[in-house]
Amino acid sequence: MSSLAVQQLVDVLKVKDEIMHAAREYLRQEGFIEILPVILSPITDPLHHDTFDGTVSFYGSPYQLTKSMILHKQIALRTLPRIYSVSPNVRMEPAERASLGRYLAEFVQLDLEVRDASRDEIIGVGEGLVLHVLTRVAERCPAELERLGRELTIPEAPFKRVSFQEAQEQFGKGFDDALSSSLSAPAWVIDFPRSVREFYDREDPARTDILLDMDLIYPEGYGEALSGGEREHTLPRILRRLEKDGIDKERFSQYLSFVEEGLPASAGFGIGIERLTRFVCGLEDVEQARLFAKAPGKVGAI
Amino acid sequence: MSSLAVQQLVDVLKVKDEIMHAAREYLRQEGFIEILPVILSPITDPLHHDTFDGTVSFYGSPYQLTKSMILHKQIALRTLPRIYSVSPNVRMEPAERASLGRYLAEFVQLDLEVRDASRDEIIGVGEGLVLHVLTRVAERCPAELERLGRELTIPEAPFKRVSFQEAQEQFGKGFDDALSSSLSAPAWVIDFPRSVREFYDREDPARTDILLDMDLIYPEGYGEALSGGEREHTLPRILRRLEKDGIDKERFSQYLSFVEEGLPASAGFGIGIERLTRFVCGLEDVEQARLFAKAPGKVGAI
Repeated sequence: MSSLAVQQLVDVLKVKDEIMHAAREYLRQEGFIEILPVILSPITDPLHHDTFDGTVSFYGSPYQLTKSMILHKQIALRTLPRIYSVSPNVRMEPAERASLGRYLAEFVQLDLEVRDASRDEIIGVGEGLVLHVLTRVAERCPAELERLGRELTIPEAPFKRVSFQEAQEQFGKGFDDALSSSLSAPAWVIDFPRSVREFYDREDPARTDILLDMDLIYPEGYGEALSGGEREHTLPRILRRLEKDGIDKERFSQYLSFVEEGLPASAGFGIGIERLTRFVCGLEDVEQARLFAKAPGKVGAI
Repeated sequence: MSSLAVQQLVDVLKVKDEIMHAAREYLRQEGFIEILPVILSPITDPLHHDTFDGTVSFYGSPYQLTKSMILHKQIALRTLPRIYSVSPNVRMEPAERASLGRYLAEFVQLDLEVRDASRDEIIGVGEGLVLHVLTRVAERCPAELERLGRELTIPEAPFKRVSFQEAQEQFGKGFDDALSSSLSAPAWVIDFPRSVREFYDREDPARTDILLDMDLIYPEGYGEALSGGEREHTLPRILRRLEKDGIDKERFSQYLSFVEEGLPASAGFGIGIERLTRFVCGLEDVEQARLFAKAPGKVGAI
């Protein structure tokens, strides 16, 4: 590695440390409690998109590597009202996605959830978190940002909101990149159709097949920042959604027994640390945002 | 769950959040940078004791779940001089160990490493960390500790040191529990024989087959707190140690190519968050120290 490349990596790692520090600082001040990540469980996020499962024999029983902590977050809210976890996720995306510069097969998600929260409240948490992180990094890492050639603009809240339908009409199918490239400040996409999201995303009672969820999209072509929404939490609704998605309920039997005992209503999101670091540092590829990056399909990477 | 049990769990989770906050506060003040955990890699800590491997197919290649970040920490020190990670580890210990109250098959380790450090310096970091955590938790969680019936005594540094040989003479083989029960303050065990530890633990140049490593033992029977030491870092010595341990060097080919390029000398340790929480809260079993605890052999736990 050239000394310039080493200096860039050192700067990125320093900025990432500040990002994580600032994020926790904000969440602590907002009354969140950190819970430990779960990386192995008989249940994990089924995820609509086509990732390969990471399966491990746990004393002879097939356990899954965590794709997101969503199901565990809902269960944890039975005990605590506001939680977050710094949660390693494994999502073995198809190898051809590596060239897009924003996928890692192993990444870390700051995953949070709030009991009885509405989507609007969680959008407020997301804006507060991003603004706090950007402000603190700009204050604490001016030399690093300058060497990285990155001028950070602190956006103003509330961020613009656009519906999935509007975004698709304007930018076509799979609009994330085109929308992101058109933006000069982060913006929310809201109201995804049921068919593109998961069984736990809450349907809008007023509009069939529209979900009360949202993505945050970075500006300047950096793509998706976070994904979240309100959650389904009652047994009849969750069973109906599993059926609509054609998912065998036996796969989620342990989860369903918690649902039967009672899950609180909630909303939350997960924000990828490496993507946030890529955006803050203005990096070409998310692989540059961490040590030991594993791009999809990159066998041999440690 | 009874309301008393729920209150206890809430208190434990609140204390654990403070433990993690205080630990990071201390490490930040000491100039450490947080790096993201690695949970999947072709290489991980081989560990002497008899755990089952967590093996996952990573795009068709067998990857291991992290047992500790030791090898990645050594490699990361090529870029940064003082690092730590909040690192989930999977160690599928034999199921009969569950009854001992201090094993989890999935747990989180605060794993740190310092370039060019001696064991004495790292012992200082360990004492500073534990004292900072105990002091802060006592200040910030008095109501939780009182409800848990735990009176925290803040020990004085430096902690007592005892050699492996002395400990074994006094308490017999597998002395951790007996030694721990005899203590009223944490104490270090130093100078383990080569045969009971790993290839990366540095041999004392002055005493063949004695390692420059250490464990911290909690008082009151809570057992082992942390494990660490100085590291081997040159190719000829590491190859010799692999050979002595009868480990096929092909298993560590990716690691050895980094060693060949050059690893810095270092020392460090890993401290288990759930065991620290158990000790701070005075819990009977480490399973009470987190949500979603997976005891060895406990199939079905989410």
